[in-house]
Amino acid sequence: MSSPDSNEPIQTSPQPAKISRRRLFGAVGAGAVIAAGAGAAVGRLTAPESASEYGDVVAFHGEHQAGIVTPAQDRMHFVAFDVTTDSRDALVALLRKWTEMAERMTVGEEAHPDGAIGAGEYKPPSDTGEALDLDACQLTLTIGFGPSLFTTPDGRDRFGIADKRPTALVELPKFTGDALEPARSGGDICIQACANDPQVAVHAIRNLARVGFGTVAVKWSQLGFGRTSSTSTSQTTPRNLFGFKDGTRNIKAEETSTVSDFVWVDPKDDQPWMGGGSYLVARRIRMLIEPWDRTVLHEQERVIGRSKGTGAPLGQKAEFDELDLDSKGPRGPLIDKDAHVRLASKEELGGIQILRRGYNFTDGSDGFGHLDAGLFFIAYCRDPQKQFVPMQQSLAHNDAMNEYIKHVGSALFAVPPGVRAGEFWGSSLFGAPPGPVAEAEK
Amino acid sequence: MSSPDSNEPIQTSPQPAKISRRRLFGAVGAGAVIAAGAGAAVGRLTAPESASEYGDVVAFHGEHQAGIVTPAQDRMHFVAFDVTTDSRDALVALLRKWTEMAERMTVGEEAHPDGAIGAGEYKPPSDTGEALDLDACQLTLTIGFGPSLFTTPDGRDRFGIADKRPTALVELPKFTGDALEPARSGGDICIQACANDPQVAVHAIRNLARVGFGTVAVKWSQLGFGRTSSTSTSQTTPRNLFGFKDGTRNIKAEETSTVSDFVWVDPKDDQPWMGGGSYLVARRIRMLIEPWDRTVLHEQERVIGRSKGTGAPLGQKAEFDELDLDSKGPRGPLIDKDAHVRLASKEELGGIQILRRGYNFTDGSDGFGHLDAGLFFIAYCRDPQKQFVPMQQSLAHNDAMNEYIKHVGSALFAVPPGVRAGEFWGSSLFGAPPGPVAEAEK
Repeated sequence: MSSPDSNEPIQTSPQPAKISRRRLFGAVGAGAVIAAGAGAAVGRLTAPESASEYGDVVAFHGEHQAGIVTPAQDRMHFVAFDVTTDSRDALVALLRKWTEMAERMTVGEEAHPDGAIGAGEYKPPSDTGEALDLDACQLTLTIGFGPSLFTTPDGRDRFGIADKRPTALVELPKFTGDALEPARSGGDICIQACANDPQVAVHAIRNLARVGFGTVAVKWSQLGFGRTSSTSTSQTTPRNLFGFKDGTRNIKAEETSTVSDFVWVDPKDDQPWMGGGSYLVARRIRMLIEPWDRTVLHEQERVIGRSKGTGAPLGQKAEFDELDLDSKGPRGPLIDKDAHVRLASKEELGGIQILRRGYNFTDGSDGFGHLDAGLFFIAYCRDPQKQFVPMQQSLAHNDAMNEYIKHVGSALFAVPPGVRAGEFWGSSLFGAPPGPVAEAEK
Repeated sequence: MSSPDSNEPIQTSPQPAKISRRRLFGAVGAGAVIAAGAGAAVGRLTAPESASEYGDVVAFHGEHQAGIVTPAQDRMHFVAFDVTTDSRDALVALLRKWTEMAERMTVGEEAHPDGAIGAGEYKPPSDTGEALDLDACQLTLTIGFGPSLFTTPDGRDRFGIADKRPTALVELPKFTGDALEPARSGGDICIQACANDPQVAVHAIRNLARVGFGTVAVKWSQLGFGRTSSTSTSQTTPRNLFGFKDGTRNIKAEETSTVSDFVWVDPKDDQPWMGGGSYLVARRIRMLIEPWDRTVLHEQERVIGRSKGTGAPLGQKAEFDELDLDSKGPRGPLIDKDAHVRLASKEELGGIQILRRGYNFTDGSDGFGHLDAGLFFIAYCRDPQKQFVPMQQSLAHNDAMNEYIKHVGSALFAVPPGVRAGEFWGSSLFGAPPGPVAEAEK
């Protein structure tokens, strides 16, 4: 990779449009595939040829994992795993293998060098093949470790890492109104796949889950069809399923000192292995869209604290106009005392900010004549206990929006720092020496 | 609309990129929105300004409904409704209202003229707003009527249309191996929303469901993240979650005589009101991806009958090479006698063909450590009893693929012909005179 310390998309010069290596594989037949696969060792891969948003590659290697301050891609597939083994070696071997696969898939390659057809006809293909014709599509893969990986609920230290659990990595408290479903909550390990083509994200998660057989099992997974936050000043603010622009005041990648203060863990914060990492909070928030849709515009805007059309703070004209929490109208504060935008503001939270990176979801029907729709909330923060928890405690108690939402899933993960050449996901936690995957681990 | 009898995308001249009316609404504030909305009566709308795949408009009006031979868009949201009223007037009023909304949304407008913010702050917004900033994205909305709309399971003719039920519209027989879940099957009415942005498809279904409150209730819905068929020679063949190119031999829109023979109902076939219509078969096919992924390439290719890399029929070189069912290899026929491609071929089915238009899905976890993934199969045919049923009977008995799939949902719908100006979805069935929606029905 040419830019090991940056998670910015690699802009490559335009070539014949959208012909990635994977696409080429689909077109030329098995002989050429084997040759190409065999010659394409990780670390010497070139980026795909297209510079479009479908072809762009986001560097996998770097100080931080990609998929955090990377400009939020349009689609997401998120998975939480249970680790089903007690063997540290098996877990480390899987993390090494996953890292190699992630390095490959994020540049638009197949999951393994021998790929969907390259291993010959008498072996199961090592790549499931559904992304063969697709480009990298800015795929990012971001791993996190749950509290239960360090100590099981019954107190066992399966992998000899209990003493490396960060203080910040404890189960979130129960918040007022929580209606959490165990089958949508928790997990020993999570992987967030974001891409501009959902098939690329699903393919990545599926192939990672597949090689994990015997070591991990899918606990829950969530597809997000549309991003609900911008994480870069280069992006327009998208809308959530309440119809409002969401994330106007989100931390942007370009605000490097804010990112440094509120997203990245400092090695001196607590556990040195987490330096350059972050914490990921996931909340599956069911939106009760039917009562919301029956609510008058004035009430919707009071609940949010912004104008629905423009996204401007109430009393202002344009989306990015300053949020003036003190401005008064004829009947009291223009921004209601329980408005979401007020309660979630740094001004009301003693300066706290988080980086949001959520997605809209719609998962069929709820069985009662309604769509099961909402927001899969993802936030990254430097210390969830000092950022997300107080913020959510305030929101859970007072947010006018609570009448229209229900938190049904919840999870917290420690997101280790980025991977440099020779390292693997969790290197700094497991303390394994850098180097290629040992043959025995394969 | 400039091209009322064509369902082809309207190619408009490029203008400032991707600024649709909806996007404009989001940017300029309430005053302008009301004015633009009020002046934009259906039928006089201009197409959005962008000629990209996101901005393109597929004509809603035409001899046939759009979304059938329209080049398959990338994303889908499909919904099945129960009708919860016994009032024919209420049902017809909803169909009229839905038609107006569909006319608007398929050109990138809001669901109603007063829209997300145009009705003033003391009314619930008439559009939910999450597509405010998005273009038409080739949205098509396609309606179908299930057998139970004509006669309830307990034999009632709620809407006075029992005698208009086409002979072809009877519940599908139980096929060998079916494992149908009632909560994912059947329905009085379906609407298929396809678009190149999933948020546009979800927005459309949500708004249609919303105004149906009191008349219909969501029975089930399905999100499809990636198309699995081409329906036009202009499209490349996508891959399903088995990693194979799917739909190589699908009927293409350009094959007009084949489309005429196998997709469109002739008014003389049975019920004249169905002339120009079609039948939609939906099957939620769970793919057992874990056993599939453990299968050697040779077996996967034997099951399908095609090469995984190129998509060529076994024994041939390129995807579109002729399927030679008689060619022999050293150990028997190159295309296995139980290969999917053989059993689904017109050659083995007495000439039968269907138009497929399915989508890949991934809906979380199945609770057993696996992803709940598969193919949401959609087929259009002129007579499902003569086309889909014999085809599926053959496949259900013999298809080598059956070891790796499970049909868990099923539904059949009569898809009425296209709508011309002044008509509404189901005009020809309900025999209502053309004309604008009566005020009382609104």
